[in-house]
Amino acid sequence: MNGLARVEAFCDGVYAIAITLLVLEIRVPGEEVVRASGLWNALGRQWPSYGAYVLSFAIIGIMWANHRNICRYIARADHTFVMLNIALLMCTAFLPFPTAVLARYLPSPAHRTAATVFYGGTLTVTAIFYNMLWRYAASGRRLLRTDAEQHLVDGVTREYNFGPPLYAVATLVAWVNVWASLAIHALLAGLYLLPSRSRP
Amino acid sequence: MNGLARVEAFCDGVYAIAITLLVLEIRVPGEEVVRASGLWNALGRQWPSYGAYVLSFAIIGIMWANHRNICRYIARADHTFVMLNIALLMCTAFLPFPTAVLARYLPSPAHRTAATVFYGGTLTVTAIFYNMLWRYAASGRRLLRTDAEQHLVDGVTREYNFGPPLYAVATLVAWVNVWASLAIHALLAGLYLLPSRSRP
Amino acid sequence: MNGLARVEAFCDGVYAIAITLLVLEIRVPGEEVVRASGLWNALGRQWPSYGAYVLSFAIIGIMWANHRNICRYIARADHTFVMLNIALLMCTAFLPFPTAVLARYLPSPAHRTAATVFYGGTLTVTAIFYNMLWRYAASGRRLLRTDAEQHLVDGVTREYNFGPPLYAVATLVAWVNVWASLAIHALLAGLYLLPSRSRP
Amino acid sequence: MNGLARVEAFCDGVYAIAITLLVLEIRVPGEEVVRASGLWNALGRQWPSYGAYVLSFAIIGIMWANHRNICRYIARADHTFVMLNIALLMCTAFLPFPTAVLARYLPSPAHRTAATVFYGGTLTVTAIFYNMLWRYAASGRRLLRTDAEQHLVDGVTREYNFGPPLYAVATLVAWVNVWASLAIHALLAGLYLLPSRSRP
Repeated sequence: MNGLARVEAFCDGVYAIAITLLVLEIRVPGEEVVRASGLWNALGRQWPSYGAYVLSFAIIGIMWANHRNICRYIARADHTFVMLNIALLMCTAFLPFPTAVLARYLPSPAHRTAATVFYGGTLTVTAIFYNMLWRYAASGRRLLRTDAEQHLVDGVTREYNFGPPLYAVATLVAWVNVWASLAIHALLAGLYLLPSRSRP
Repeated sequence: MNGLARVEAFCDGVYAIAITLLVLEIRVPGEEVVRASGLWNALGRQWPSYGAYVLSFAIIGIMWANHRNICRYIARADHTFVMLNIALLMCTAFLPFPTAVLARYLPSPAHRTAATVFYGGTLTVTAIFYNMLWRYAASGRRLLRTDAEQHLVDGVTREYNFGPPLYAVATLVAWVNVWASLAIHALLAGLYLLPSRSRP
Repeated sequence: MNGLARVEAFCDGVYAIAITLLVLEIRVPGEEVVRASGLWNALGRQWPSYGAYVLSFAIIGIMWANHRNICRYIARADHTFVMLNIALLMCTAFLPFPTAVLARYLPSPAHRTAATVFYGGTLTVTAIFYNMLWRYAASGRRLLRTDAEQHLVDGVTREYNFGPPLYAVATLVAWVNVWASLAIHALLAGLYLLPSRSRP
Repeated sequence: MNGLARVEAFCDGVYAIAITLLVLEIRVPGEEVVRASGLWNALGRQWPSYGAYVLSFAIIGIMWANHRNICRYIARADHTFVMLNIALLMCTAFLPFPTAVLARYLPSPAHRTAATVFYGGTLTVTAIFYNMLWRYAASGRRLLRTDAEQHLVDGVTREYNFGPPLYAVATLVAWVNVWASLAIHALLAGLYLLPSRSRP
């Protein structure tokens, strides 16, 4: 037994929980606001929470889909692979916090830059750990299945190379314009919807 | 490996978490209310929370049972199927929020219509994504198992056709009468208890 | 495919989440209390929270172990079995709420009876649903494995017969003495630790 | 069927949830603090929360990796093994609470000793239950696989012998110096990163 199955089960669990906890960031509107402007208005005013929910849900969902994708090439887990997975999950499970910060301070002109940089910074660090995990498994075909075709493996490596710099650029753009930064994040998530040879 | 197993495991995880988070919406009665009227009265006054818990628990439970049902006909997952699943989970994991809004504002005559429409609207959108997921898998038998009998597949499709319009009607009824709307939601959940050829 | 595996996975998920959410009921002591009496005293004063955590954790843990035990005799799941499972999970996932009520109002002489009866009542209802689930599966060996020995099946049935009346008695005792009621609940959990022919 | 698979699934679930709930301990900075000193400063002031998150995440992650490691030597589960697992999970699922206490009272010179002792004490008790679980399975090779090599089994036993006294020492050091105690905890987690014959 190589024990990959339990690593996948544990990771699936953490992804599933982190993605579902995102909803706790959305608060039921308080009675004062509702009495003053009605429930629809009070719900509407919470658009940053809904936006942050949708964006982070899509991003964590894509991270999970990526994890599932690379595990399809991997034959076994060793100690370092398990440790790298835990480090990666540490970043992923942290995401509900910058999401909540973004939802709370996006409407505030004085603080929305910091909130968006903090959010993008977390994504950038997560992308770096993703790359480390994959490179550790794929370099010299250390943990790969014997039937994993090298040109598909190289395709994943090439695609993953773009991750950290793209997230870093999206994060830096927030210093200029917060909305442009968030639009790039949404675009990166949207691009993932396209079919690709590495996502059969 | 077709990777359907991990998609099912991830979806099971999100359903299990969303359904269990529903209980967090029910608050321990505060000491002031309890001192004034006793704990039984204070607990009793929270009936909208219990009602919303039971209704949403039944609905998410049925959604999970449905997901399990349709996966029995499906042989493999492709990229689009995974993405549609994530979109569907985004709706499902959102449900604890409209449930909490409903529980909080159902006792308030001025706001209960909005709360019920918001709740029913979320269910309607979820039903639409369910239909999209099934249609994508079943049209032209794209992802179906070769041994999935066509008349059972057609039975599921026919049954699912009713989902979005029925939820939409239940939602619209809330503009006329909130209790009738909720009764229809409960009835739709109850109907699912009946045996059916598509739920062996 | 009989689909029992996904029912077990979903139930495992809900049990695991409900049992882990129990810790959210324990609050970090506020700074006022801590400043007045020190952190150790403030932590110590929360003994009802720790007691309720341990008791409910043991009870949900035993419920899960029971679920796993009976599934060992079961060969397949049908629609009614799935629906009964969802009803059972609805009770189980509710338990963090009466646990939190018990932890909050146990120190209060005026309200501790109601809190304990509410807690025990939830356990009694849960035990009834457990019985229904098992009886549905076992009566006429409806869903049992062909290799499930009848005398072991009968042993489980006999043991489960005691569940609801014992929980009901423990609940009623709370009207006389809260501590006796809780002691019976702890005793019932403790009895489960003993080996038994039906728990190999 | 020996039923080990469901025990592993349930444990994986509890570990995954406990580790992901840690993020709920980190609060979004309140608007007053943010207005006074800016969002970056407000986020920075929460360093004890981030530190406690990283430390507890690493520790629970390592606990899970350990659980997976010892299960590789184990062939089957019996009643006592299941009960010991539930006791172990009771400690593990409790950890988010001492983590939150540590994060909240670490900045306070008057209370940080108690917070660190409470945290280390919980880890010590958890390590004791780990030892009990392993010893029960391994003594006389009670639950071990026939192909588990005795010298590897002995290696795990020897390594686990160090757990409780090391955690106890780290806990006691907190009475002298809180930072030294936390440094030992971090060091113990870091040591686990090293390869070892018992962690192939």
